[in-house]
Amino acid sequence: MTRIVRVGAAQMGPIARKESRSGVVDRLIALMRQAHSAGCDLVVFPELALTTFFPRWLIEDPGELDDWFEREMPGPETKRLFDEGRHLGIGFYLGYAELAREREATHHYNTSILVDKAGRIVGKYRKVHLPGTVDPLSGDPGQHLEKRYFEVGNLGFPVYRAFGGIIGMCICNDRRWPETYRVMGLQGVEMILLGYNSPVGLDGDPFEVNALEPFHNHLVMQSGAYQNATWVVGVAKAGHEEGFDMIGQSAIIAPSGEIVAMCRTLTDELITHDCDLDAGRYYRNTIFNFAAHRRTEHYRLIVERTGAEPPS
Amino acid sequence: MTRIVRVGAAQMGPIARKESRSGVVDRLIALMRQAHSAGCDLVVFPELALTTFFPRWLIEDPGELDDWFEREMPGPETKRLFDEGRHLGIGFYLGYAELAREREATHHYNTSILVDKAGRIVGKYRKVHLPGTVDPLSGDPGQHLEKRYFEVGNLGFPVYRAFGGIIGMCICNDRRWPETYRVMGLQGVEMILLGYNSPVGLDGDPFEVNALEPFHNHLVMQSGAYQNATWVVGVAKAGHEEGFDMIGQSAIIAPSGEIVAMCRTLTDELITHDCDLDAGRYYRNTIFNFAAHRRTEHYRLIVERTGAEPPS
Repeated sequence: MTRIVRVGAAQMGPIARKESRSGVVDRLIALMRQAHSAGCDLVVFPELALTTFFPRWLIEDPGELDDWFEREMPGPETKRLFDEGRHLGIGFYLGYAELAREREATHHYNTSILVDKAGRIVGKYRKVHLPGTVDPLSGDPGQHLEKRYFEVGNLGFPVYRAFGGIIGMCICNDRRWPETYRVMGLQGVEMILLGYNSPVGLDGDPFEVNALEPFHNHLVMQSGAYQNATWVVGVAKAGHEEGFDMIGQSAIIAPSGEIVAMCRTLTDELITHDCDLDAGRYYRNTIFNFAAHRRTEHYRLIVERTGAEPPS
Repeated sequence: MTRIVRVGAAQMGPIARKESRSGVVDRLIALMRQAHSAGCDLVVFPELALTTFFPRWLIEDPGELDDWFEREMPGPETKRLFDEGRHLGIGFYLGYAELAREREATHHYNTSILVDKAGRIVGKYRKVHLPGTVDPLSGDPGQHLEKRYFEVGNLGFPVYRAFGGIIGMCICNDRRWPETYRVMGLQGVEMILLGYNSPVGLDGDPFEVNALEPFHNHLVMQSGAYQNATWVVGVAKAGHEEGFDMIGQSAIIAPSGEIVAMCRTLTDELITHDCDLDAGRYYRNTIFNFAAHRRTEHYRLIVERTGAEPPS
């Protein structure tokens, strides 16, 4: 059995606030067709791929807020995307704002799904590491209110047998946390799919962190890939969206940590790669043979302590 | 109170098998004096800095093996180094093979110590992530027998208040494991000192991992620094030693993940940097505010599982 998965990373340019879901789905379908023409098994779309990045605004009306969310998946506008995927025989990863009815209440999550070539949802992930704040920062033109609008994901970091391998998912800020990759690595993950929306220039700071945003983006994905011997497919919503700049440089990263394909624009752009799911085997059997080398007795603080506590 | 620590990273070129401890200490003192002339508060030496990298050979005679270890620290040959440090008023990190008498038995560790400007040992670390094998690999000209010669460190990853900040240590292969940095990050570490001996070309492998060794070396240190908002000072024993090549590129890495100083040779070479221990504060207060963002309930597999277990 072949262990090559041809993956398309379908970066998106900006989505305007007024852009309709239907218009966005047209763009997704165009990218999906392009990926299919390139022979892809799987196409990866960004985080919150159906709308503009609405957490940048304070939205106080609950009904207006919920309009940014999907009540069902597939829903009225997204059904066409599922149908097209099934028709073409191509799977996809899609990020969206999920309005879920669970435990007799309504819940809001920043979610991604994995859909197989038959159009079936075979995996779901809800973002664990929500960045930003609950309350708006006064005087800041660009807010980042994910902690206000979303609950912390309640599914952990599951992996799924799909596309001939073991596939995991995460979303945006999750990629900065080594725990994200490691929990999936301990489940033998072979490919991690992740979408992101990463604004530049939200804060002034003395160490010029904003100029480093593209560097940090790749640094965390490359180290997460290498340290867990897994492919990582990171896909941006990029460009100048509603007055704010978002980084691009969507990348397909090998288990060696090397970037093997990268977007060069800030627009809708597809890159592809034939990902050999056995490419991580050498690392798994030697330097990153977890069973041989990990010493969990010395890691306990990772779960026993949340915040940093300096010694007395 | 100033929070600038001027650090010297004192890379060493190869140490021949026949080179005496005394000759090596001469080299360490020369580097220490150079660091003092450059105004350093602290100079960082490599892992196993007193001898050649002896785990590359199978040594079957226990007495011959123990000759590579230090029975006391400072000992007969290393006392001069401590005296010189105290005389100059400069601290140091030193890696060495430690023969310890504990629990009524003799123990072997791959150890580092932190010595203050008064020549007092103020911190000790014993390597947790021992690479290589217990048994020699047949047909391999270069062995890596750390698992045979050393016990797993029994001190965890402690941090120490020293040099006006919070200082942690690790050794060589520890740097590839995100748990290493995170356990120290959760103790508020501001600077991690680490020495390494990293051979190139021990294995043939289909993915040309050997050519990537210098890239991986920096990748893991840079991500560990950034993800924990800490300085990392990584110091190599480098060059062509007893028929084997070892990587150099010793580096001082800022909490941004940026390499701010790097060795350009494979010989004894000092690089220095004024490390602002407050440089990580911006990250600690925002994107890497652990208390605000970490979700330990989803990290449990990191301590509950040692090896990778694919889903059924």
